[in-house]
Amino acid sequence: MTKQILVTNDDGVLSPGLLTLVQEMQKLGNVTILAPDRNWSGGGHVKTLDRALRVREFRLEDGSQAFASDGAPSDCVALALLGYFKEKFDLVVSGINFGANLGHDVTYSGTVTAAMEAAIAGLPSVAVSLEVPEGHIGPMDFSASGYAARVAAQNVLAHGLPAETLLNVNIPFLKKEEIKGFRVTRQGLRVYHSRLDERIDPRGRPYYWIGGDAPTGVPEPGTDVGSLSEGYISVTPLQLDLTDYRALSNVSTWEWAAKA
Amino acid sequence: MTKQILVTNDDGVLSPGLLTLVQEMQKLGNVTILAPDRNWSGGGHVKTLDRALRVREFRLEDGSQAFASDGAPSDCVALALLGYFKEKFDLVVSGINFGANLGHDVTYSGTVTAAMEAAIAGLPSVAVSLEVPEGHIGPMDFSASGYAARVAAQNVLAHGLPAETLLNVNIPFLKKEEIKGFRVTRQGLRVYHSRLDERIDPRGRPYYWIGGDAPTGVPEPGTDVGSLSEGYISVTPLQLDLTDYRALSNVSTWEWAAKA
Repeated sequence: MTKQILVTNDDGVLSPGLLTLVQEMQKLGNVTILAPDRNWSGGGHVKTLDRALRVREFRLEDGSQAFASDGAPSDCVALALLGYFKEKFDLVVSGINFGANLGHDVTYSGTVTAAMEAAIAGLPSVAVSLEVPEGHIGPMDFSASGYAARVAAQNVLAHGLPAETLLNVNIPFLKKEEIKGFRVTRQGLRVYHSRLDERIDPRGRPYYWIGGDAPTGVPEPGTDVGSLSEGYISVTPLQLDLTDYRALSNVSTWEWAAKA
Repeated sequence: MTKQILVTNDDGVLSPGLLTLVQEMQKLGNVTILAPDRNWSGGGHVKTLDRALRVREFRLEDGSQAFASDGAPSDCVALALLGYFKEKFDLVVSGINFGANLGHDVTYSGTVTAAMEAAIAGLPSVAVSLEVPEGHIGPMDFSASGYAARVAAQNVLAHGLPAETLLNVNIPFLKKEEIKGFRVTRQGLRVYHSRLDERIDPRGRPYYWIGGDAPTGVPEPGTDVGSLSEGYISVTPLQLDLTDYRALSNVSTWEWAAKA
């Protein structure tokens, strides 16, 4: 039976990364597109409950029908899975994000949290992000990442994923023929170099900007960061139980007053 | 040496839950307050990079000096830890949230993601949330949750926490004397009952609201949800490596084309 695939992203419905992803997913099934009408980068896992959401119809550059909402990426997934479309989806794919989502980025990333929203709703999902060096302004070559997205999605459609698991796929900034292959990895470490800039506005009042250099990665072998640095596409299965199991027994020995 | 404690929340600087938390933390050290100037519930883990942030001085009801920013809870933590204040903090405490943060709530929750931001920056942190039954409009009794926050913070100051670990503390909606004690738990399961409402605006155009009943919990013993349902305060250590280690070996056996 034809697979029903929902495509969303976090850079907005007109991003060329979305178009590439749509075209690759159309090789695997029927594609429905619902994405934010603007860029939501760094927006986190949002559940918009206190306001209504609008949905508008769009056409992508290749003429594909698409829908855009004024909600976050995770809101787009919620709208689609709660019945905005009549389709029942088999897979949710989010991306292709302009910029990698590695290490702790996954908790901030609209691309990844859109996939989380699908996982929470019980659907397999894949987040796809392309590494972009600081300062690169394009044009972007999405051919390797489109290919990676298709291989990952095809695998998920063939094998399924455990409940509440999603795949976080990151592609190094290389030509397709330079990429060495895929690696299944664990989440690595980013080092954030944020710095607070205090500036003074024209009325003499301070304002603050979270600036500083782009995060760097700790290229440990076996991690998402390490694999990208070695020229491999990284595929990290993520899950949503954040319990620190290693800390449970120690924290249990602390003195917790028996009665409040 | 006197401990430096940063207090933030997700309901906004004027929330009575923040005031209770501040007063309890003042028993443990010097308290600095930087919280959002409005409610950010369901706002996720936000990193505001594309606009400047403002900070205004406030007074809480008891006269305590406080600061409010127009950023998200995680932005408040970033501002504070990146040097808005001269203090070097020993602990970040977030809350007391109006409403529990259980199960997958932790990925959406401003209260929890504020604590995550501290953990990523290398500081121990505690998120504190009070269960509130659907439809309850107050007044709120924060005495049990204030007590729970203090016990948890005291323990963290005494014992420390592993790197990148935070505590997620939830308090049942009970009088202090009815609470049975503390339980160290794992993250449980929420069942979301979201439903999409389509409505028509005065100009005849549709809009959409993510509605439906409040989430319910699966009260499994040993979990946050289960402990609250049995009348215990739940303390869940959380960590930020989302790798699905159980899925790694299986996903590795899938066919990943050797060359892109």
